[in-house]
Amino acid sequence: MDNQLLIYAIPLSGVIALLYALYKAAWVSKQDPGTEEMVTIAGHIADGAVAFLKREYKVLAIFVISVAILLGFANSGRPDSSPIISVSFVVGAICSALAGYFGMKVATKANVRTTNAARTGLSKALNVAFSGGLVMGLSVVGLGILGLSVLFIVYSSQFSEINQVINLISGFSLGASSIALFARVGGGIYTKAADVGADLAGKVYEGIPEDDPRNPATIADNVGDNVGDVAGMGADLFESYVGSIIGTMVLGAAFVPVFGSMGESTIAAVILPLAIAAVGILVSIAGSFFVHVKEGGNPQRGLNTGEFGASFIMAILSYFIITNILPSSWVVNDVTYTSLNVFFAVLTGLLAGVLIGLITEYYCSTHNKPVESIAYQSVTGAATNIIAGLGIGMMSTGLPIIVLSAAIIASHYFAGLYGIAIAALGMLSVTGIQLAVDAYGPISDNAGGIAEMASLPPEVRERTDTLDAVGNTTAAIGKGFAIGSAALTALALFAAFRQQADVVSIDISEPVIMAGLLLGAMLPFVFSAMAMNAVGRAARDMITEVGRQFNEIAGLREGTAPAEFAHCVDISTKAAIREMILPGTLGVLVPVVVGFVSKDMLGGLLAGVTSSGVLLAIFQSNAGGAWDNAKKRIEGGIEFDGVTYGKGTEAHKAAVVGDTVGDPFKDTSGPSLNILMKLIAVVALVIAPLIR
Amino acid sequence: MDNQLLIYAIPLSGVIALLYALYKAAWVSKQDPGTEEMVTIAGHIADGAVAFLKREYKVLAIFVISVAILLGFANSGRPDSSPIISVSFVVGAICSALAGYFGMKVATKANVRTTNAARTGLSKALNVAFSGGLVMGLSVVGLGILGLSVLFIVYSSQFSEINQVINLISGFSLGASSIALFARVGGGIYTKAADVGADLAGKVYEGIPEDDPRNPATIADNVGDNVGDVAGMGADLFESYVGSIIGTMVLGAAFVPVFGSMGESTIAAVILPLAIAAVGILVSIAGSFFVHVKEGGNPQRGLNTGEFGASFIMAILSYFIITNILPSSWVVNDVTYTSLNVFFAVLTGLLAGVLIGLITEYYCSTHNKPVESIAYQSVTGAATNIIAGLGIGMMSTGLPIIVLSAAIIASHYFAGLYGIAIAALGMLSVTGIQLAVDAYGPISDNAGGIAEMASLPPEVRERTDTLDAVGNTTAAIGKGFAIGSAALTALALFAAFRQQADVVSIDISEPVIMAGLLLGAMLPFVFSAMAMNAVGRAARDMITEVGRQFNEIAGLREGTAPAEFAHCVDISTKAAIREMILPGTLGVLVPVVVGFVSKDMLGGLLAGVTSSGVLLAIFQSNAGGAWDNAKKRIEGGIEFDGVTYGKGTEAHKAAVVGDTVGDPFKDTSGPSLNILMKLIAVVALVIAPLIR
Repeated sequence: MDNQLLIYAIPLSGVIALLYALYKAAWVSKQDPGTEEMVTIAGHIADGAVAFLKREYKVLAIFVISVAILLGFANSGRPDSSPIISVSFVVGAICSALAGYFGMKVATKANVRTTNAARTGLSKALNVAFSGGLVMGLSVVGLGILGLSVLFIVYSSQFSEINQVINLISGFSLGASSIALFARVGGGIYTKAADVGADLAGKVYEGIPEDDPRNPATIADNVGDNVGDVAGMGADLFESYVGSIIGTMVLGAAFVPVFGSMGESTIAAVILPLAIAAVGILVSIAGSFFVHVKEGGNPQRGLNTGEFGASFIMAILSYFIITNILPSSWVVNDVTYTSLNVFFAVLTGLLAGVLIGLITEYYCSTHNKPVESIAYQSVTGAATNIIAGLGIGMMSTGLPIIVLSAAIIASHYFAGLYGIAIAALGMLSVTGIQLAVDAYGPISDNAGGIAEMASLPPEVRERTDTLDAVGNTTAAIGKGFAIGSAALTALALFAAFRQQADVVSIDISEPVIMAGLLLGAMLPFVFSAMAMNAVGRAARDMITEVGRQFNEIAGLREGTAPAEFAHCVDISTKAAIREMILPGTLGVLVPVVVGFVSKDMLGGLLAGVTSSGVLLAIFQSNAGGAWDNAKKRIEGGIEFDGVTYGKGTEAHKAAVVGDTVGDPFKDTSGPSLNILMKLIAVVALVIAPLIR
Repeated sequence: MDNQLLIYAIPLSGVIALLYALYKAAWVSKQDPGTEEMVTIAGHIADGAVAFLKREYKVLAIFVISVAILLGFANSGRPDSSPIISVSFVVGAICSALAGYFGMKVATKANVRTTNAARTGLSKALNVAFSGGLVMGLSVVGLGILGLSVLFIVYSSQFSEINQVINLISGFSLGASSIALFARVGGGIYTKAADVGADLAGKVYEGIPEDDPRNPATIADNVGDNVGDVAGMGADLFESYVGSIIGTMVLGAAFVPVFGSMGESTIAAVILPLAIAAVGILVSIAGSFFVHVKEGGNPQRGLNTGEFGASFIMAILSYFIITNILPSSWVVNDVTYTSLNVFFAVLTGLLAGVLIGLITEYYCSTHNKPVESIAYQSVTGAATNIIAGLGIGMMSTGLPIIVLSAAIIASHYFAGLYGIAIAALGMLSVTGIQLAVDAYGPISDNAGGIAEMASLPPEVRERTDTLDAVGNTTAAIGKGFAIGSAALTALALFAAFRQQADVVSIDISEPVIMAGLLLGAMLPFVFSAMAMNAVGRAARDMITEVGRQFNEIAGLREGTAPAEFAHCVDISTKAAIREMILPGTLGVLVPVVVGFVSKDMLGGLLAGVTSSGVLLAIFQSNAGGAWDNAKKRIEGGIEFDGVTYGKGTEAHKAAVVGDTVGDPFKDTSGPSLNILMKLIAVVALVIAPLIR
């Protein structure tokens, strides 16, 4: 197909994604939500979730408007830029917010309907839960590709200079990144404040049941799953997806004059990432048809078939897309590029993502040595459990970093900086179905919570637990893709920044750049600390409130009077909104301030944030995952020195401590770092023309 | 004085240091060691410590001989180098080992004599403990300056090329670094395996008293204080001291042709660091005379007067040394240097060290908000205590990194790369008295343990506790100097490497260098993990052994039969020797392998190790310190929600968990990272001519 025509076909895939998402959402809504009690409980969860998102978006609206005005002023009257970048920024923010809102709305419908379906069987329940997740996945990729391609078409008709067009579009990525950071941090604090608070209340006040429907914090805990693990993760992947596409577009722009002189379509390398993403959407939809399970079967197989099948098909299709769109070979600065090598760069990315995922799985899986060693170290108490978990988490950074370094060198060998960028995109091409699998997790988790609170028969809970337990492998691999692609995307954006800011060399042995490197490496630590401390503070408020209710509400302990769960929802909401502002603002401000002090120092800062960010992210999320599964492993019973330790033993209590420490690690601070490193890189890219 | 003559005066200061150390050691030996029981206990500790050191040195001898042979081969037949570098390496290793051995020998005499002195009063006890520490401090600086200056004089008479002379001397630093890494890691594992194991045995086996003389692991615990906190720390500071002197010498060599053309002493900038260090020794000895306390007074004042007084005098003397040795101004590559600005660079280093120390003190002191918040979070259990401690530790990286970055930029502004190196030396010029104060801590700690085991009256223990408790501020500031100087020294060595390996630019946006950066940033994580896991494993063995003795030895629980403490000493010894080998070898091998793959990648690796190493080191040591003091804070009683929590409450138990987790953080993995980053930089510097 002619490349100039192709660009008009790309938005179509976004439209298809959204239409299919609408269809799936309508289908979910049509399902029976079950008994009146179930409907009431689910209503509280949905109301709490929507109320939080509305308050969050109100705060973000102020932020978005302020930044848009500043961006507009800063870019006005410049020949190489335009205040229109503010429009991209606002559109990016709105698309991200819409995807989050829409996905979460449907997730809060799917949860109770999954519970109800689980009353009759596993197959239908899987279908409902996965459909709910798919709506999230397709909303994200649909709005992402639609927003990007429409802006590209519109700007291309207004501005002749391709670099300027892409610079203006980078505002879209900035909008997505800003929302993502706030949503991830806010959602993460919300969910873990409720979770940790509910779990620990029993430790402080005697006789309060942990993990019990009478606990007033349980509704807030379930709301948290939706705002953190669904809406937060959606914004996160929206950002990765958009960031990796734009990073590749910026670097592809370097080929425009060469392709022009060859008589090829000048923008071939620029629209290639859009084309790959567009096909990836169709492949994701196709893959979703393979996700089903027979009654009594293992849902893991269905999910694996869907996700791995989609990745495999995508790998093959990439070959045809790349060789068709790009010329078979071209030369820039005496370096020869070939379309085949660009394809190999994509494969490198895919392979690295799978490898990092498998390594993650090794370190976090219940059946392997690392988790086993944490379980055994729990016998001697919480301290050795924590030491072991921290040790495993730190050790688990080794292999992924080796894989990542190899992928950087290999993809650069194949196709230069463009190769690194497109390798990241390779990892993210089937985000649609990956995110569906990810979001399916918290929906099943919620379904189980509703079954518990509505006192449904135990076989219902068993079915939802089966749903919840599977998808761990796919989730681990998804995490590998998320971290790997974040690092590669940050590098691609870093290279794009260097190009746009006209920085000749970022020589790390220059003191200013070394100072930038140290400052950059420090940010993820301080950022994690803020998230951890916020969770700690909010959890304490939650514990105090739960204690108050058990002391003041007569009959709550006996289960005859209802808890005032709205107060708990309110505590989580307020804490999340209050605590997300400082780290979120910091993430945007620091690169701006440093950039205007010295663009060289900003270069060092980017390198520092990326290196320390990816390491802390792997460390925190793997330590958290391993602690979680060490607890589960002990629940299955372990033997030490002739004694068997299981649920309720001292070893189990020690493992619960580890799990609780791991909660903010893996669900609040860890995932936020992925966004932080990309956000700082995008901010640098956006301000690049201003500090050139 | 003429510079060429000056160089012959420098070894003299080393001789003075060693003679004074001998005199002090003889004085300590002459003191009364007390009752027969005290002598027996102290004898066990001393025997265990010497036995460990002998085994450690046997293993290290094999390592040193192998590396020496390899170094000799690699450097033979090269015009710019010589196999003689092996001699420097062996001499450096032997000097470091001797300093550790001698210092520890005297420390294990001073401990029981401190206990005995404390039976009559505080003043004498302080004098004995501090004298013991001073022997360690003066042995380190004396052997350091003597070894370096004698090698410099000998090599200068044999080789005419100053760069070659300094390259050969850098082997001395490599020897010191290698011993330091093994000694720190081995000693750290030893001491924490015994400490953690003894504390936790009571958790697993019922009825075992924690922290009690009947516990068979107590002797091992006391041995650990000597091999870890005395010998290990001595080797650590020996390395810092030598590394910062050599880093400055290498960078000072760049001025040789300029000074020659000006008719100045060509080697002025090369011998300046030696001259500063030499005067620093005399100032340290002078400062030691101010360390005393009146009966009933606060020993803190005496220690502060000694250490701060010495630093202050040193700052003033530096001005005269620098302006006398260096020409008042000179020009290299159009940049004007002045001796006054070199002095300002030294001041910058001193100021940064004090600031980082004060920040460390803020985050770890019992009376400030960070520790208080951990104490309050302990009320809700171990999990929130751990979350809070991790959060505080991560947050505490912020200000020190800002200070460090500012110091890098400022000292570079004053005097270029030479300025950065001499700033590090500024921090370390009074190492003699700093190390005396540091080593005084474990000696007092041991004295208290002996008082307890020998069942002396409570006022003796009170006096040793007073000695132990003070010096926290000075110790915190010492830690600030250690981390700050390690980072600056690593940067100076990094710059020296770049110069010697002829690397033009280490452009971090080059994929190979970025891969190196990521790999380098990963090393401190994996290294910490190895240390943590080793402590965990060894502690478990210790717990099992303690349990066995309580079950099998009749009368042990009742205090009528003695424990078989030698078995516990043996477990710690074997574990420490076994577990130090892999991380130690890795620290030496990785930079060699990476360097021969690509010298650019090695440049990235150095930047990565330094940035992530300094951050993890600050994080771990501050988290550990804060957890320790949060426990002490609760022991003093805290109030939450109207309830008072003190020793023995659930809050205290939670704080003990935090303290136990913090132990390997602050005493094993954290301090090892300081060495790791310098070791890797020194290895790079030594192999630089081979990979040029």
